[in-house]
Amino acid sequence: MIDATHDQSAHCWVPGAADHREFPVQNLPFGLFSAGSDTPRPGTAIGDFILDLAGLAPLLGTHAAQAAAVLQPGAPLNGLLALPPQARRELRHALFALLTDDAHRDAVTPFLHPPAECRLHLPVSVRDYTDFYAGIHHARAVGALLRPENPLLPNYQYIPVGYHGRASSVRVSGHPLVRPQGQILPPGETKPVVGPSRRLDYEVELGFWIGGGSTLGTPIPIGSAGEHIAGVSLLNDWSARDLQAWEYVPLGPFLAKNFLTTVSPWIITAEALAPFRTAQPARASDDPAPLPYLLDERDQQSGAYDIGIEVALQTAQMAQAGDAPTPLGRTVATHLYWTPAQIVAHHTVNGCDLAAGDLLGSGTISTPDDDGRGSLMELSRGGRQAVTLANGETRTFLEDGDEVVMTGWAERDGYRRIGFGTCAGRVIGNPNG
Amino acid sequence: MIDATHDQSAHCWVPGAADHREFPVQNLPFGLFSAGSDTPRPGTAIGDFILDLAGLAPLLGTHAAQAAAVLQPGAPLNGLLALPPQARRELRHALFALLTDDAHRDAVTPFLHPPAECRLHLPVSVRDYTDFYAGIHHARAVGALLRPENPLLPNYQYIPVGYHGRASSVRVSGHPLVRPQGQILPPGETKPVVGPSRRLDYEVELGFWIGGGSTLGTPIPIGSAGEHIAGVSLLNDWSARDLQAWEYVPLGPFLAKNFLTTVSPWIITAEALAPFRTAQPARASDDPAPLPYLLDERDQQSGAYDIGIEVALQTAQMAQAGDAPTPLGRTVATHLYWTPAQIVAHHTVNGCDLAAGDLLGSGTISTPDDDGRGSLMELSRGGRQAVTLANGETRTFLEDGDEVVMTGWAERDGYRRIGFGTCAGRVIGNPNG
Repeated sequence: MIDATHDQSAHCWVPGAADHREFPVQNLPFGLFSAGSDTPRPGTAIGDFILDLAGLAPLLGTHAAQAAAVLQPGAPLNGLLALPPQARRELRHALFALLTDDAHRDAVTPFLHPPAECRLHLPVSVRDYTDFYAGIHHARAVGALLRPENPLLPNYQYIPVGYHGRASSVRVSGHPLVRPQGQILPPGETKPVVGPSRRLDYEVELGFWIGGGSTLGTPIPIGSAGEHIAGVSLLNDWSARDLQAWEYVPLGPFLAKNFLTTVSPWIITAEALAPFRTAQPARASDDPAPLPYLLDERDQQSGAYDIGIEVALQTAQMAQAGDAPTPLGRTVATHLYWTPAQIVAHHTVNGCDLAAGDLLGSGTISTPDDDGRGSLMELSRGGRQAVTLANGETRTFLEDGDEVVMTGWAERDGYRRIGFGTCAGRVIGNPNG
Repeated sequence: MIDATHDQSAHCWVPGAADHREFPVQNLPFGLFSAGSDTPRPGTAIGDFILDLAGLAPLLGTHAAQAAAVLQPGAPLNGLLALPPQARRELRHALFALLTDDAHRDAVTPFLHPPAECRLHLPVSVRDYTDFYAGIHHARAVGALLRPENPLLPNYQYIPVGYHGRASSVRVSGHPLVRPQGQILPPGETKPVVGPSRRLDYEVELGFWIGGGSTLGTPIPIGSAGEHIAGVSLLNDWSARDLQAWEYVPLGPFLAKNFLTTVSPWIITAEALAPFRTAQPARASDDPAPLPYLLDERDQQSGAYDIGIEVALQTAQMAQAGDAPTPLGRTVATHLYWTPAQIVAHHTVNGCDLAAGDLLGSGTISTPDDDGRGSLMELSRGGRQAVTLANGETRTFLEDGDEVVMTGWAERDGYRRIGFGTCAGRVIGNPNG
């Protein structure tokens, strides 16, 4: 790919950008921030700063006119996501040019804000949120807790299994998680009780942001499905396992999931991630071939994302002692059985329409071993085996005061490392129990 | 209840209103219409006309100032739903006063439009859509097809079972249904094929529109949950049974449902329906009592809606011959096992937030006998027993060209009949097969 914004030797004049481990000029993610008490406005993270894109819009000139027109204070990034991909690429190129040419330093500098003086907001008004289940090692591990002989259900290797989540309760990193209450069936009982969840868990996922949408009644073919993904964030699909076990038959998870979904604040663009696309992991020889509507040669060769994710836990005791979070797992998105393009093609094969601002969760991304389990449910073997943390505390599920911190990155020899920022949330006790 | 808008002897001067079977002045539903090529605008149905509420807003004066401010052309009714219930009641009272006093005839008449010159639109930009499963006779009948010995699952009489649906594919009555395609497991096979659904069905439901929302982390108590329902429409939860059977384990229905959900155009307000509230049907002596968060004396006594619904089918052959649709069932919403207030209290018990413009489907409302089955799945015993229509045609599931027409009403001695209008949609063939 010949693209100026992938020039790895380009020098960015913004302080801290030259050797930044998350936000070099090759990243240029999109987000929504406010400085002080200002209205939230579109921004990008560059080096040690946040750049106000609404303020900068007049400087973008004719090279990114479509994007400049939607970079307004007060509005979430749905307008930017609704533009054709080419318009977002023009914006990226215009920003890259401004930030790598010293001649623009004086004009651009007034729009740089120190992150410490800013607040990050949910970047998009989430339209519909769909959560998939494409992490096969998670599906196997969770299935094995219920059906040791036959962990994967018969449809798993044919269907990118997914379900509708709750859009209203998606929040940006940092939003506290009020421990949910609900109906729980105590072990050995036949009548449920109502109380705070005692099996509260995280799930390590990616969130794919839909750019251009589609029309009701018209499927998106696999060959163009990837173009509908505008960018990627980290996603924590918080789950209450005890609520889920009692409620989920026959219509799936509901209150076990819809009390909060956390995303990282920056949308890492498809363009920034282009160098980190890779082949789908090889299927086992007895795995079925994808059905034709899910099969595309280019997607098989380069449809997966080589994105690393680490999840860590900081208990209240650690926070008080000033201890760093204990890493609980490190995984990589190539463990997903289905690519984002396959997920999009499946979601629309029946004519379901997608829209700019839709969020698609990948499903929990686990490694096949204990190095990178994407949930405590897996690590603790369904709560039967406690996990020991760095300070000697143990956990089967989350306790009040625990903070779950996810970080993500893409790296590859010869390329600048691209960071995702943080997706974090701390559990606070339920006021009713 | 002493409320001027329930004066059954009030005379409305609008032509056709005095003896209208759907839209007397005691109804005054809210909808979105356009006359000719105008921008869609809020309206109400009164007698033989649609009244332009945006045009009328300046005449509403100080009695309904909050509502008048949001009755703008171009916007869906989310703003009206977001107002406190009292503001919608003031609007209702102001309209009732204008329409029952001859002195206002000349001023109001210019804002009346003949429906034949108007188009009705989806009244609300649907935020989140949740579909419940509260029709116990439907749950029993469908459960019996799979588990004759034990049709109801253990959680059914404790939990108002529900799942998240797709908000983007909700459409107003009249929108055509493109027969969805998807993965289908042929009987006796282990590998799925892809093709158009052959087991396409309707589901007779009510849709409850959420007015005032709630805050993430804060449950809505059962005692005030009913106040969050601003109004009710008819809802057809179109379903592809063959897609559903293969995809729904373990995360619930997805592509089997999200290709289209149809609602009737008018929101029949909670105020118009107040005289038709009634007690929940008596539980059987061995039914469990609702858990405390679902139990409220007033809700038990008057939380259910006495709303009748008829579903009818007009095939292409009938339409060509000019034959009326064949009625397939007539049911009543008191067959719902849970009240709307119980559904709202359950939805939020874990802290999930609701917002103005959310849509809650009731679940399929069937009678315990064949007079009012809410789906073909039930009528045809899972497709094993064809239904004979008035012209001799037979159906197990829907065929191309079939139109499903739902109508609804509330009636009671001493009260004017309130109509819901129509919720209809015709199946068109899948272009791929």
